[in-house]
Amino acid sequence: MTGQRADARRNYARLLAVAEEAIAAHGADASLEQIARTAGVGSATLRRHFPNRRTLLDAVFRERIETLCAHARDLTEAADSRAALLEWLNTVTAYAATIRGLAIALAHNSTADLGVPPEHCASDRLTEAGDPLVRRAANDGVLAPGVTITDLLALITGIALATENHPNPAAEANRLLGLTVAGISPRRR
Amino acid sequence: MTGQRADARRNYARLLAVAEEAIAAHGADASLEQIARTAGVGSATLRRHFPNRRTLLDAVFRERIETLCAHARDLTEAADSRAALLEWLNTVTAYAATIRGLAIALAHNSTADLGVPPEHCASDRLTEAGDPLVRRAANDGVLAPGVTITDLLALITGIALATENHPNPAAEANRLLGLTVAGISPRRR
Repeated sequence: MTGQRADARRNYARLLAVAEEAIAAHGADASLEQIARTAGVGSATLRRHFPNRRTLLDAVFRERIETLCAHARDLTEAADSRAALLEWLNTVTAYAATIRGLAIALAHNSTADLGVPPEHCASDRLTEAGDPLVRRAANDGVLAPGVTITDLLALITGIALATENHPNPAAEANRLLGLTVAGISPRRR
Repeated sequence: MTGQRADARRNYARLLAVAEEAIAAHGADASLEQIARTAGVGSATLRRHFPNRRTLLDAVFRERIETLCAHARDLTEAADSRAALLEWLNTVTAYAATIRGLAIALAHNSTADLGVPPEHCASDRLTEAGDPLVRRAANDGVLAPGVTITDLLALITGIALATENHPNPAAEANRLLGLTVAGISPRRR
């Protein structure tokens, strides 16, 4: 944020901290008006920093997304490409199922149309980080033909959204991911 | 609605018609206040007929859910139990992916805790209707061990929620369902 004035920087940091709490408490559709009010700024200031809800969500989840991206990079050299991909998918699923609002942030495939730079877009970042794991597994013939990282993130996001109200969302989401990996009816008669 | 006074019946019908339009236009989180206003009733009247959003959603989707239940019953005697189950799952998925608000209505597993009678609960109705198809497929050994109708409805709901913003949600949702059926990485090395 080079060149930003100190008060703008302070507003940004305060808005982000308030937004994090509000989204943890109320989910992705936490009131933006309330976030601005709690942060002690006007809604014009909020909109200047975060032109829309997506940009705010992407900013709130940036660190968590970076952790998941780093995890993908760590796994790229693992000996077993199938195990590496599944480990990463399980971790992303557990995050998406337990961190309120994250699955919604991932549900939109790209923010290209919202003017968010791709390096700040949660789903673009995960797509880029997970792609090498998917390609390695595909090259090793351990992935169903044609399955892409985009497909996998859509399936994970869906599972996380569907298990949101479960008493143990991470365990349930990972169980459903297991069914998806193995196939619910893989055999032909 | 035997015994209800005529104006209560009219209010109910008007609220339901307005709610259908509002949910088609704005999704499951359409404003209840706006629905009451458009229907020309107070919000106390709306709450008397529909104590919460879930009861309203279940009422709005009742006919569509009945169509899906009837489809399941038609398929129960089909010769190929796997094909019958998959046909039904594909139909439910296409409905959930294209009818705004339906996937959200299905995302909660039961309204038992909301005081909604199970015969009016969208997910309970589908669970009951789809269960015989699942049991037949399981008995024929064409379903992965332990997979339940609840699992399948959760996976379908998730896929529908994750494809909501896709330009062709039904086709995309059915493609992702196909991956889930076959398994994204069914083989072991």
